[in-house]
Amino acid sequence: MTTAIYPGSFDPITNGHLDIIERASKLFDRVVVAVLSNPAKSSLFTPEERVGLIERSVVGLPHVTADLFAGLLVDYCYRHDASVIIRGIRAVSDFEYEFQMALMNRRLRDEVETLFMMPQELYTYLSSRLVKEVFSLGGSVRGLVPDFVLEALTQKYPSRPNLEWVD
Amino acid sequence: MTTAIYPGSFDPITNGHLDIIERASKLFDRVVVAVLSNPAKSSLFTPEERVGLIERSVVGLPHVTADLFAGLLVDYCYRHDASVIIRGIRAVSDFEYEFQMALMNRRLRDEVETLFMMPQELYTYLSSRLVKEVFSLGGSVRGLVPDFVLEALTQKYPSRPNLEWVD
Amino acid sequence: MTTAIYPGSFDPITNGHLDIIERASKLFDRVVVAVLSNPAKSSLFTPEERVGLIERSVVGLPHVTADLFAGLLVDYCYRHDASVIIRGIRAVSDFEYEFQMALMNRRLRDEVETLFMMPQELYTYLSSRLVKEVFSLGGSVRGLVPDFVLEALTQKYPSRPNLEWVD
Amino acid sequence: MTTAIYPGSFDPITNGHLDIIERASKLFDRVVVAVLSNPAKSSLFTPEERVGLIERSVVGLPHVTADLFAGLLVDYCYRHDASVIIRGIRAVSDFEYEFQMALMNRRLRDEVETLFMMPQELYTYLSSRLVKEVFSLGGSVRGLVPDFVLEALTQKYPSRPNLEWVD
Amino acid sequence: MTTAIYPGSFDPITNGHLDIIERASKLFDRVVVAVLSNPAKSSLFTPEERVGLIERSVVGLPHVTADLFAGLLVDYCYRHDASVIIRGIRAVSDFEYEFQMALMNRRLRDEVETLFMMPQELYTYLSSRLVKEVFSLGGSVRGLVPDFVLEALTQKYPSRPNLEWVD
Amino acid sequence: MTTAIYPGSFDPITNGHLDIIERASKLFDRVVVAVLSNPAKSSLFTPEERVGLIERSVVGLPHVTADLFAGLLVDYCYRHDASVIIRGIRAVSDFEYEFQMALMNRRLRDEVETLFMMPQELYTYLSSRLVKEVFSLGGSVRGLVPDFVLEALTQKYPSRPNLEWVD
Repeated sequence: MTTAIYPGSFDPITNGHLDIIERASKLFDRVVVAVLSNPAKSSLFTPEERVGLIERSVVGLPHVTADLFAGLLVDYCYRHDASVIIRGIRAVSDFEYEFQMALMNRRLRDEVETLFMMPQELYTYLSSRLVKEVFSLGGSVRGLVPDFVLEALTQKYPSRPNLEWVD
Repeated sequence: MTTAIYPGSFDPITNGHLDIIERASKLFDRVVVAVLSNPAKSSLFTPEERVGLIERSVVGLPHVTADLFAGLLVDYCYRHDASVIIRGIRAVSDFEYEFQMALMNRRLRDEVETLFMMPQELYTYLSSRLVKEVFSLGGSVRGLVPDFVLEALTQKYPSRPNLEWVD
Repeated sequence: MTTAIYPGSFDPITNGHLDIIERASKLFDRVVVAVLSNPAKSSLFTPEERVGLIERSVVGLPHVTADLFAGLLVDYCYRHDASVIIRGIRAVSDFEYEFQMALMNRRLRDEVETLFMMPQELYTYLSSRLVKEVFSLGGSVRGLVPDFVLEALTQKYPSRPNLEWVD
Repeated sequence: MTTAIYPGSFDPITNGHLDIIERASKLFDRVVVAVLSNPAKSSLFTPEERVGLIERSVVGLPHVTADLFAGLLVDYCYRHDASVIIRGIRAVSDFEYEFQMALMNRRLRDEVETLFMMPQELYTYLSSRLVKEVFSLGGSVRGLVPDFVLEALTQKYPSRPNLEWVD
Repeated sequence: MTTAIYPGSFDPITNGHLDIIERASKLFDRVVVAVLSNPAKSSLFTPEERVGLIERSVVGLPHVTADLFAGLLVDYCYRHDASVIIRGIRAVSDFEYEFQMALMNRRLRDEVETLFMMPQELYTYLSSRLVKEVFSLGGSVRGLVPDFVLEALTQKYPSRPNLEWVD
Repeated sequence: MTTAIYPGSFDPITNGHLDIIERASKLFDRVVVAVLSNPAKSSLFTPEERVGLIERSVVGLPHVTADLFAGLLVDYCYRHDASVIIRGIRAVSDFEYEFQMALMNRRLRDEVETLFMMPQELYTYLSSRLVKEVFSLGGSVRGLVPDFVLEALTQKYPSRPNLEWVD
């Protein structure tokens, strides 16, 4: 049985993340979406809220679960008997940083393999950071995140501007 | 009539920015240099000072104006009936971020087109950040910014070092 | 009046090219799609066939025409009183070559400005070369080129394989 | 059961390829190393010789086989009931081309997923082309290819120079 | 006599830095490893500690010294009569930033030449930041830094986790 | 005494190459500009003509010579007791290929170090290939190559077009 870990901040989960999760769930026996809980880094949603939004997003995917993690990623893999780390790559600049991390992780534990996957073209410009920035300024992110993430964002930004031309 | 918006921080305007502005002013009926007013981000010059320095720089260009903006860039375009966003690109790393922003902006309002322009070769290494860093340490930035920007920088860094070999 | 030249091989025109042409036609008074006629380079379609396919593609765009050119691009611009060269960029590797050409063209004639435009995300993986390769091996390129280009391709590859699973 | 296809020219197989194959063989039930047989492209080894060298290289890996293929890669996947394409990436320039191919393949058959894997750092500078070029000029490629590939290269280049300082 | 400056943060020095220093010491008469003392930037080791760790690392290299510097790099070169700045580059993203700095430094003082050197492949994924991050989370960095740097790190992170599988 | 080899095709030498040669001549005791003589590759100038044009270009630089070479670059270094290979880099795409070659050369002979140098900004768009293409189509390359290279180009392209607007 092959377990794959898909680590990230997921602050919040987007349809680009979901696209990767669905593709991965067809290839591996178990996929764990692992939310990095980093107290030193400020975030919009708490780690628990982020896990909750992921859990709602993967309801239809039986072998996918969400979890929190802290510490070394390869240590988390060791404890969950996972042999695969999944990373989505969208751009060249992503790629170099990801490559560096993957080589370090391989050095730390050679048993764990990092696999890179591509999101759909429509999601190449998509990131959690951009979703938050656009939404907070009044722009629409419908279609870029699940509907209940849209609701969760609305609660986080109660006073966002009301632009006349936005759908 | 085609209105083009050239958005940025311009903290302060450099000769690289001016090069783009002059080239754009020949192609479009109206060019608005739009200074992003972002209270969350620290800057050397206030937004108003930045607009003032741009206004002095574009005195000879009749169809160019400077303005402040906050919020979503495509919303600013909507309110000013602008169909073009202009961005200068110097390097590959610029390009990927710009591409991502442009695709998001297109998704938000398809009527607005982002056009990328190249500065002169001499300005490829030039950025407002680098100008401030070099000037504050005593280096010369003459020729990289208009003369009155040089004066404005001198007032902001009254105690910069006096290096014997600098012009 | 601003005339923009959109130069290329167009062997054959794709929906990615058409996307750029439509966007450009909204910004400039006249757009000339200029097919490079280079006898030294082998091509699937003759230059005249390529111009014909472009002409059928832009029937609905009143200010867009197709033309052949040979020689220096900036010389062609001079003879057609064009002040803008349009180039589509999809990827980082495109970008560097395009940058180099644009800087050389600016050096040759500073009056001509190169503007870079982005195609839709769906066309980021699209090139004439890839269309020909995939089609000749039996793959479907429906939706990537206009329908009459599909017919023209069928005539050029009469013996392409018939794959059972292809639409 | 998951079958993964690892396609390429393998002219000849290097230790960088072998590294990817070994890693992939731990993750998937079956790995097929698929040699592209392209009569239009000149090569040092015939497709059959290349398959033979791969077969000798993977003797110790029970679920790995070598094969020839021509035509569309996703069609080959369809006929072998393979749901995964594996590609090694070493550099940014690799990445963009690979991305483009992977997006086209996904468009042709969405059931097939392309996964990108990293070779060991030591093999980042390694390519079949470079191995042939260096070997033909008298340089040593020991350690970069299996020993029997070294012998096969010696037979292909009987008159390569004998450099005094080479091991 | 040619003096080369190798500037950086060195927080702390890694075997990747040392590899560059050793290579540079064979090419130039004198190499000064110059630690940037930037009070505005937080660091794990004090500038003096960093100089101390470098000094212990280069004990066997007679013409290499370590020093602190603040201010403009080319001014430091002027005061030490150095005509060469050495920079290690590992990745494309490094390269663009380095290029920009080098062009600015050349503009400030044309007498100083920036030379780019490559570290060994094994160190391409290595950075001081990554060393600190991995070590603080319990991962092993043995072989990536000199042994006494390992001891110094242990003192800085007294409560790092004790992972069962780590060497 | 440090000897540096600056290898390349130099078909023909440009002012970008000369800029690198002049900078290198200040840093090393001897610089050999080594023209690769590759019978398999077509060129405009014969290898001997290329050496001749370089020799005329470096008349004022006492420690610079021009030479032909064939075979492995590090073997040429060995025979000339050279410890440095110099390469100019202009762009990210240059950089990756150069990196790959440099790592292979280091593997072949670790005693030889590859140093990367930047040309002036004005020459970032410059290549021998572009010079030939532009010149053959009637464009001016004055200022991009030495004057006697301009004459040599004129003899190679006797029937180039005479454009009215070119200087």
